Amino acid sequence: MVETHSEKSGSATVAPSMVWDAWGVPAGHQPLSAQIRGLLTQVFGISGEPVARRDEGDVPLRPSVLTDADRDGLVDVVGAEHLSTADVDRLRHAGGKSTPDLLRRRETAPQDAPDAVVFPADHAEVLALLRYCAEHGIAVVPFGGGTSVVGGVDPVRGQFATVIALDLRRLDTLTEVDPVSGTATLGAGLTGPRAEELLGAHGLSLGHFPQSFEFASIGGFAATRSSGQASAGYGRFDDMVVRLAVATPQGSLDLGRAPASAAGPDLRELFVGSEGTLGIITSVTLRVHPVPDTTAYQAWSFPDFATGAAALRGLVQTGAAPTVLRLSDEAETGLNLARSGDVGGHPVSGCLAITTFEGTAAHVAARSAEAEALLTAAGGTALGEAPARQWAHGRFAAPYLRDALLDVGVLCETLETATSWANLANLKAKVTAALTDALGAQGTPALVMCHISHTYPSGASLYFTVVAKQLDDPIAQWRLAKTAVGDAIVAAGGTITHHHAVGADHRPWMAAEVGDLGVRVLRAVKRELDPAGVLNPGKLMP
Amino acid sequence: MVETHSEKSGSATVAPSMVWDAWGVPAGHQPLSAQIRGLLTQVFGISGEPVARRDEGDVPLRPSVLTDADRDGLVDVVGAEHLSTADVDRLRHAGGKSTPDLLRRRETAPQDAPDAVVFPADHAEVLALLRYCAEHGIAVVPFGGGTSVVGGVDPVRGQFATVIALDLRRLDTLTEVDPVSGTATLGAGLTGPRAEELLGAHGLSLGHFPQSFEFASIGGFAATRSSGQASAGYGRFDDMVVRLAVATPQGSLDLGRAPASAAGPDLRELFVGSEGTLGIITSVTLRVHPVPDTTAYQAWSFPDFATGAAALRGLVQTGAAPTVLRLSDEAETGLNLARSGDVGGHPVSGCLAITTFEGTAAHVAARSAEAEALLTAAGGTALGEAPARQWAHGRFAAPYLRDALLDVGVLCETLETATSWANLANLKAKVTAALTDALGAQGTPALVMCHISHTYPSGASLYFTVVAKQLDDPIAQWRLAKTAVGDAIVAAGGTITHHHAVGADHRPWMAAEVGDLGVRVLRAVKRELDPAGVLNPGKLMP
Repeated sequence: MVETHSEKSGSATVAPSMVWDAWGVPAGHQPLSAQIRGLLTQVFGISGEPVARRDEGDVPLRPSVLTDADRDGLVDVVGAEHLSTADVDRLRHAGGKSTPDLLRRRETAPQDAPDAVVFPADHAEVLALLRYCAEHGIAVVPFGGGTSVVGGVDPVRGQFATVIALDLRRLDTLTEVDPVSGTATLGAGLTGPRAEELLGAHGLSLGHFPQSFEFASIGGFAATRSSGQASAGYGRFDDMVVRLAVATPQGSLDLGRAPASAAGPDLRELFVGSEGTLGIITSVTLRVHPVPDTTAYQAWSFPDFATGAAALRGLVQTGAAPTVLRLSDEAETGLNLARSGDVGGHPVSGCLAITTFEGTAAHVAARSAEAEALLTAAGGTALGEAPARQWAHGRFAAPYLRDALLDVGVLCETLETATSWANLANLKAKVTAALTDALGAQGTPALVMCHISHTYPSGASLYFTVVAKQLDDPIAQWRLAKTAVGDAIVAAGGTITHHHAVGADHRPWMAAEVGDLGVRVLRAVKRELDPAGVLNPGKLMP
Repeated sequence: MVETHSEKSGSATVAPSMVWDAWGVPAGHQPLSAQIRGLLTQVFGISGEPVARRDEGDVPLRPSVLTDADRDGLVDVVGAEHLSTADVDRLRHAGGKSTPDLLRRRETAPQDAPDAVVFPADHAEVLALLRYCAEHGIAVVPFGGGTSVVGGVDPVRGQFATVIALDLRRLDTLTEVDPVSGTATLGAGLTGPRAEELLGAHGLSLGHFPQSFEFASIGGFAATRSSGQASAGYGRFDDMVVRLAVATPQGSLDLGRAPASAAGPDLRELFVGSEGTLGIITSVTLRVHPVPDTTAYQAWSFPDFATGAAALRGLVQTGAAPTVLRLSDEAETGLNLARSGDVGGHPVSGCLAITTFEGTAAHVAARSAEAEALLTAAGGTALGEAPARQWAHGRFAAPYLRDALLDVGVLCETLETATSWANLANLKAKVTAALTDALGAQGTPALVMCHISHTYPSGASLYFTVVAKQLDDPIAQWRLAKTAVGDAIVAAGGTITHHHAVGADHRPWMAAEVGDLGVRVLRAVKRELDPAGVLNPGKLMP
């Protein structure tokens, strides 16, 4: 086992770095079930025998070009023990976890990696690092959990010779708890589980559970407008942000004096979603709530996706949303993809919906009764607790399944968008067609599955999983499909991303998203805060 | 009666211009009740005899300096019939409705007014006007209902010789309704009642009812981050904004492709609250809902403000908020200020809270039962429907009462802030002390009353009404108090404004609100979109 910076750290609970070539930690990796292997043979003619993975010590990296002078300058800020140019640290900061990222890691040519990884202790050190890097022309990639699936942490140098990863894991404290107001201030480097652990000691919970929960960080959630599985109850991460501290090459920002304000534009909303291009979020004051007394689970079946979507819409528009509210389409339901233990097992018909209700016993009782009446009236059949508990049990497992599929020569990727309720069926059809057409045209027919996992009074998200047989160059294979589907989303009126963020991968569609003048506004803000342009080059801004 | 542009307009329902020297329309004006006059004699030694008001035809204005060339240039865009330099139109666009505004109108010296008022028909004309004004150095004050109480529509010239008011009343159509998604696109110039009327024809409602509802405009609500009395149920106006169109001297913006997105910073939030300094909002797509089947009213009494505030907090943090949720403090309750028909009548003890519940019958039944249980457990005593209906009946009347008080020599003004629940009592005490000290030191002891009218999981707004005897120079008298209270709000951790906006009056505290770097960000955006600086000079930005 190669020793990494994180494992040497003296902090109480160390965030585990994810393995270099796949999702998560080794303990999460599992071979494909017999059910899934059978399905792969049947559908794609794939044997299901995995290829061997390389040891990370064997991976050649392009050598670090960090100069001695710059090393000294950075060490002056963070201390020698908090800067690493070791290949193992560089490799673990070499990018995120999109399917193209993981496929790229499997290539045998030398890999791109940051020239150094620095681990600042606090806001002041982040500020000092940014000033140093702006002055000396060093590109800075902020790094939280490294879970980006859109190229958001790619070590892009831009116009600069040198690029460093600025790893925020040492900003890992709960600095303030206000149980009366239901808020807590959390360091940007805290992972989801560690944040919940620290809050739990105060009887509190954040309730933000995206699929990346186990590894992603508070700062990353804010910088990418993350949305968790309990968004119907607790809101998107951006809804939870009460206040945030940002370090920029030009100084600090402390935004959010009140739960709501009419004092001009909401500048928090400029930094939430800024993906490290305008500044680095160092701490976030978030809305939290008491650890729920009760959680009720209820699964539902709908005859088809349109009926199920209308039922979800009715719930949300009535103001009767549960804590978790999801609906799988016929394809996803048929493969049991929402229930990790049963994926590929006995086919199920119709569309599965999951609801959970959290809070006080009285609140849960009132809400679940109201929702049950509405969902029944809308054509739903209650399936009881079991499928909902199965979903909850396996809800962070899907990325591990993707790794196992990639290992056996299956291409597997996800993408997501959102639109109005009125446009939902159209957008779903257009995205599905773009994926099946673009992959089918390459001789690799695709399975496309979809679910709604985030609902709003005016619309919902659509989350797609696509599976096909890999070609010899699966990166090029996927690039064709991704381009087709991005164009299709824009043409059909969807947003290019509902919660994965823009990163490098969605940049081609940013001008369509906010318009040319919107892009000029973003650039004007960047010029003011990062005139040298060192902050996360090649991300977000077209 | 002087004929004004609005009364000549051919549009179906014409928004009535407010009278020049007071709130609202003549029909709303009422003499003080015997109860109130008795109270004024008792507390302030004031007789209660009103001074006579001037006719607007008798008011001297500084002459218009619009050149013939500029008149021709503007007329080229809007047509001769939609540009006015008539004194009556200029006077009605000479400012907003703060107490200092109204006191200033009573002065006999010539009044400041815009040099012309233009009435563009649509987005394209607004865009063309902005381009013309940017090119020719004419300051532009966007004008909706003219209800600003913070100097937001003052005809400030800045560095320019000429200033025009750009009145948006002709942008008065409902251009799109999507009942499935629950959204509607409304012209910026629609007043609250006209918007509700147009939506009502589709069985829909916006549910935005600030005190300015009867006269304020959709564009103004967005540009100032308005918050209505039903904000607990339907959200602040900024929460309702799904999409918005903005005209700037540099072109147009169309922001908001989806109900939620992770495609970078939320640029909508830069224009919502921008108060006409970055662009002019010409239409807004808003979340709407079916006209409620049922409205339930329930008033409550709490022994004191702290108990009542804790009860409201419990409701909101449980996720059981009603549609309307308000709490008057002991002083406001004692004067019956929440019940317009009874103001100054038989004193009432404790603190009055108002709840209403809107929606389907089943939803209202479920929600009101949950709220009733929580409020009772938190120490509330149900008072039945009557006081809540009384509040609802008179809820737009308070500004008329202020006019009647000003007429008899009483200084009356309101101000508002917001903070966390934990800091609420502290902020309330500090604001009250600042007002009573600053006015008391001038020999005019003040009555200060307060209510909570907007609640959030992490905190609430505080809305203050202050009443004192006028001195000879009541504008200077109030300026001392306003400065003291602004400083006190900032020192006590509140926001300088929760829903009145910044305008000219809160500018001194903007740097404290967003920091120097935050101000630089706002200026950078303004430089990009309005390089000539013609948009609403002297507002928002310090």
